Amino acid sequence: MSADIKKRISKLRTFMKEKGMDAYVIPSADNHQSEYVGEFFKARAYITGFTGSAGTAVITKDEVGLWTDGRYFLQAEHQLEGSGAKLFKMGNQGVPTVLEYIEAAMPSNGKLGFDGRLMAMQEGEDFVSQLSPKNVAIEYAYDLVDMVWDGRPKLANEPVFLLEEVHSGESRSSKLRRVRDVMKDEGANYHIITTLDDIAWLLNIRGNDVKYSPLVLCYAVVTMEKVELFIEESKLDIRIKEALAKDGVVLRHYNDIYEFVKGFKAEDVVLIDPARINYAMYKNIPAQTQKIETDNPTILFKAVKNPVELANIEKAHIKDGVAITKFMYWLKTNVANTTITEISASDKLEEFRKQQEGYLWQSFAPISAFKEHAAMMHYSATPETDVELAQGHLLLMDTGGNYFEGTTDITRTFALGEVSSELKKHFTAVARGMMNLARARFLYGCKGYNLDILAREPMWSLDMDYKCGTGHGVGYLLNIHEGPSGFRWYIVPSKHETNTLEEGMVITDEPGIYIDGSHGIRIENELIVRKGVENESGQFMHFDAVTYAPIDLDAIATEDLNRDEKLYLNSYHKLVYEKLEGFLTFEERAWLKSYTREV
Amino acid sequence: MSADIKKRISKLRTFMKEKGMDAYVIPSADNHQSEYVGEFFKARAYITGFTGSAGTAVITKDEVGLWTDGRYFLQAEHQLEGSGAKLFKMGNQGVPTVLEYIEAAMPSNGKLGFDGRLMAMQEGEDFVSQLSPKNVAIEYAYDLVDMVWDGRPKLANEPVFLLEEVHSGESRSSKLRRVRDVMKDEGANYHIITTLDDIAWLLNIRGNDVKYSPLVLCYAVVTMEKVELFIEESKLDIRIKEALAKDGVVLRHYNDIYEFVKGFKAEDVVLIDPARINYAMYKNIPAQTQKIETDNPTILFKAVKNPVELANIEKAHIKDGVAITKFMYWLKTNVANTTITEISASDKLEEFRKQQEGYLWQSFAPISAFKEHAAMMHYSATPETDVELAQGHLLLMDTGGNYFEGTTDITRTFALGEVSSELKKHFTAVARGMMNLARARFLYGCKGYNLDILAREPMWSLDMDYKCGTGHGVGYLLNIHEGPSGFRWYIVPSKHETNTLEEGMVITDEPGIYIDGSHGIRIENELIVRKGVENESGQFMHFDAVTYAPIDLDAIATEDLNRDEKLYLNSYHKLVYEKLEGFLTFEERAWLKSYTREV
Repeated sequence: MSADIKKRISKLRTFMKEKGMDAYVIPSADNHQSEYVGEFFKARAYITGFTGSAGTAVITKDEVGLWTDGRYFLQAEHQLEGSGAKLFKMGNQGVPTVLEYIEAAMPSNGKLGFDGRLMAMQEGEDFVSQLSPKNVAIEYAYDLVDMVWDGRPKLANEPVFLLEEVHSGESRSSKLRRVRDVMKDEGANYHIITTLDDIAWLLNIRGNDVKYSPLVLCYAVVTMEKVELFIEESKLDIRIKEALAKDGVVLRHYNDIYEFVKGFKAEDVVLIDPARINYAMYKNIPAQTQKIETDNPTILFKAVKNPVELANIEKAHIKDGVAITKFMYWLKTNVANTTITEISASDKLEEFRKQQEGYLWQSFAPISAFKEHAAMMHYSATPETDVELAQGHLLLMDTGGNYFEGTTDITRTFALGEVSSELKKHFTAVARGMMNLARARFLYGCKGYNLDILAREPMWSLDMDYKCGTGHGVGYLLNIHEGPSGFRWYIVPSKHETNTLEEGMVITDEPGIYIDGSHGIRIENELIVRKGVENESGQFMHFDAVTYAPIDLDAIATEDLNRDEKLYLNSYHKLVYEKLEGFLTFEERAWLKSYTREV
Repeated sequence: MSADIKKRISKLRTFMKEKGMDAYVIPSADNHQSEYVGEFFKARAYITGFTGSAGTAVITKDEVGLWTDGRYFLQAEHQLEGSGAKLFKMGNQGVPTVLEYIEAAMPSNGKLGFDGRLMAMQEGEDFVSQLSPKNVAIEYAYDLVDMVWDGRPKLANEPVFLLEEVHSGESRSSKLRRVRDVMKDEGANYHIITTLDDIAWLLNIRGNDVKYSPLVLCYAVVTMEKVELFIEESKLDIRIKEALAKDGVVLRHYNDIYEFVKGFKAEDVVLIDPARINYAMYKNIPAQTQKIETDNPTILFKAVKNPVELANIEKAHIKDGVAITKFMYWLKTNVANTTITEISASDKLEEFRKQQEGYLWQSFAPISAFKEHAAMMHYSATPETDVELAQGHLLLMDTGGNYFEGTTDITRTFALGEVSSELKKHFTAVARGMMNLARARFLYGCKGYNLDILAREPMWSLDMDYKCGTGHGVGYLLNIHEGPSGFRWYIVPSKHETNTLEEGMVITDEPGIYIDGSHGIRIENELIVRKGVENESGQFMHFDAVTYAPIDLDAIATEDLNRDEKLYLNSYHKLVYEKLEGFLTFEERAWLKSYTREV
């Protein structure tokens, strides 16, 4: 492999030389600021051999650098071995950032290259301002990797399907009206949308162009009369074309948007989201065109689920809960006498999900992690790492499904046989954190950072922390991670998760404990934000749990629960039983009765 | 009274006319951005008759407007009656802000006047930018109220005293070194400090120029070699002058600073705090002098109490707890058979404080509020409102003392006789909130807005809220409200209370319930921020309560406490008993034993 990598880099350098570039940057992105990208876009992996989901490669005349974060240090070290590439461990002391490195490495009057479609607008601007003292030119119009990449996968071109109003709860024309109202308020006659989930939501279309995420590769430009949709036409059948045309959607070639935006006039006003547009698109807008920079209006619109969506989400979660419960029953009754591995367990769970009506596919790469594997937050079992389950330990399963009725995300940690009192103590702390956030009551106006401590306190009281947020928004048959609200105590501006918690948002609640080399525990429910009483104090808010599956009582240390926590656990389990009992066999139902008993 | 007011305004208008001013603004401030101001500075009260602590008057040729907030609507309506002044209820819908009002009222090419020393820098700048389209001139060099005010109180001129190192824990020279280190880092050769508590802290001086606050009216300009101290020299005795001179402090007249700063040169670099400098001072700095705008370095330095201060604070709180406990014993044993009023109760408490060694005076206007009076958060009993205490109700007392060992702030709510189950339920919710914040464990980096919900949750769970922050920093023999950290779930930028919670900060924890016309409950302990374990998760932090006084068990509904809350209450009460028993009579001690019993 490393010989291949060296060849690729050497070829890339000949093209760099041809274009007069002193350095070339390859990020992990696609053209749409997506969190997960299709195979076509895995350019950084192709060039460096490092396949992790996050990382940036910088190729200079005599060095190859790869930047990645703590999740991937081990994997990157392993995958870069022998390639000659140098690993830069982001966040470690003394390690320069990509920007700092390039600033030092670039010669005066040099030229930096990157594919401007893969670079966020702000990142590109940061390069420009940081390198201007050295008078460095930026060339963003070439995808050099494409010139090197033999057998590059094609751009995903999966068929589009319509999300009917019975599932979306709002017509395309109504959504367009709301977006246009914002444009009017802002005085804009154009609105460019490049984020795939925003377009899918707005046009009530779905697809399968990114693994797990039901998205459609396209760009949209909304005007007062039309929607210019830049998409490969072959993805659309005649019925869909007609439906779109009825709402003023005009089709254009996927890549033509970069020329299209060059045609904006001086009197045009274009609304763009600076956090959600790529550098090439941004630079192609004529300088004299007025830009209004604000969040895409669709961000908040799609995060606040409408009553039809919420009713559907409830249905999706009942199906999901049935699958999880059937799986849990199967696991508990078979683990002692059957060979089960991490992968076969998650395959079994997938079987149960597939039995559910309206199920499409998994909403993300399933995590099935036994014992110490579960301490790795993003562990994904491969045939090489797969292990057989055994009694006396914990199995963590973080999985989810895409249904026409919505996207689910659930984590349950299961005790296999009798587990130690330390494991029970940790499991109970995690369960307490999950429940204490779920039962919060709060005033309208709260953000996730106000509430996060409710989930985290049981772990903090043990002098432990989990190194991630407590929860994220979930899309409706869209992205598994969706802004603009979430739970995290510290503010990470790039995460866009500090919006006020609005009625109808759906957010996960998933605290955990991760002990390196020993075990990992996470329990995750999704919560719907609800309005409560409004009185002279203001508008009160609370959550309804919409995930229905038992929290494994075999791992609960009852004596660690206080009264309020016991009350919540019992009422939650009662709800789980009521929601699921009708969909289970006699045996499963009897089993569930016992696993949702009062403590 | 209203005839007097009319005369004053008419006189003011003749001076406005003389200066060509179309409007004149009178805020509630002093020259130092102080929260409480001396009598000399109560210009707005003199001109309008409204004596509340917050409000702004605007006098135009034909209107007098007074802006104040919800706390003061009733009082302002009453006090403005017959004066012809118009009350603007800040925050109410449709009510213009001062800025909006002036913008509408000013003629083009008109002139707006105010005393620039009373206006925060940013406020002044806001006037300038808002009024520039109308080409309005700003005249900030005249104190017109002074020309009108017969018998104006003199500027406070109380003697200064030194805070010895045994109390301050750090020498003047060491503090100056730390400030100068920041100046060096910032490249500044001048640093102007106008906030009285910052100067008092830096120079280890105290005084009595503002009622309750042990502050000294002065300004300081720090250079690398000297401190130019602008102060009335008669305030300083020879010993203090010598001590100051030894550390390079040079004395100048109080008002001369405004000329002094005009003398800065083009090559000078002056460090100022834009939130803590007045408009006149700011404008007097030559335009070509470079200004570095950042928080006064003293803000964070003085908020983080050193070990000597912390040990002293502990002593001050034991004294304060002794006084409160003696008072509580007296109250409980006498209320049934003695006439006690709100005022006589707070006088009695003051007697007990005066018995403590090192006690100086009250740290703020005491709140002694019976029954429905306690629902008014800022109630202050006057002979007109004073009522006799009676059995079956609650008495709220929020008081504090200035000691050489520090400043205290404590609230206890006392049950007089047997109180209703509703009162007990509310009292217990407040106690739970106070305790749940006090027993928090959290990672270093948390701000007050991360933790506030711990205190507020029991009230929010009852669909109730208290309309204020949960707690504020407390100075060391300084201001009772001290930044830059506090507890409040929503961010109010002007409050400067969102700093990370640092080891050694002292912050109050005072949730409450306020039911209009019925009752008010607040329980307040001060908390010291402490470091806990440091491990791979980071630096853990927690609080130590430093307020020692019983939480009235007569008002606790034990059944509302969960296990963790009971454990905390019992251990807190054990601590209270241990700290105080040595300073009590036999009777008091026996009584305290019972009032700190386990529940």
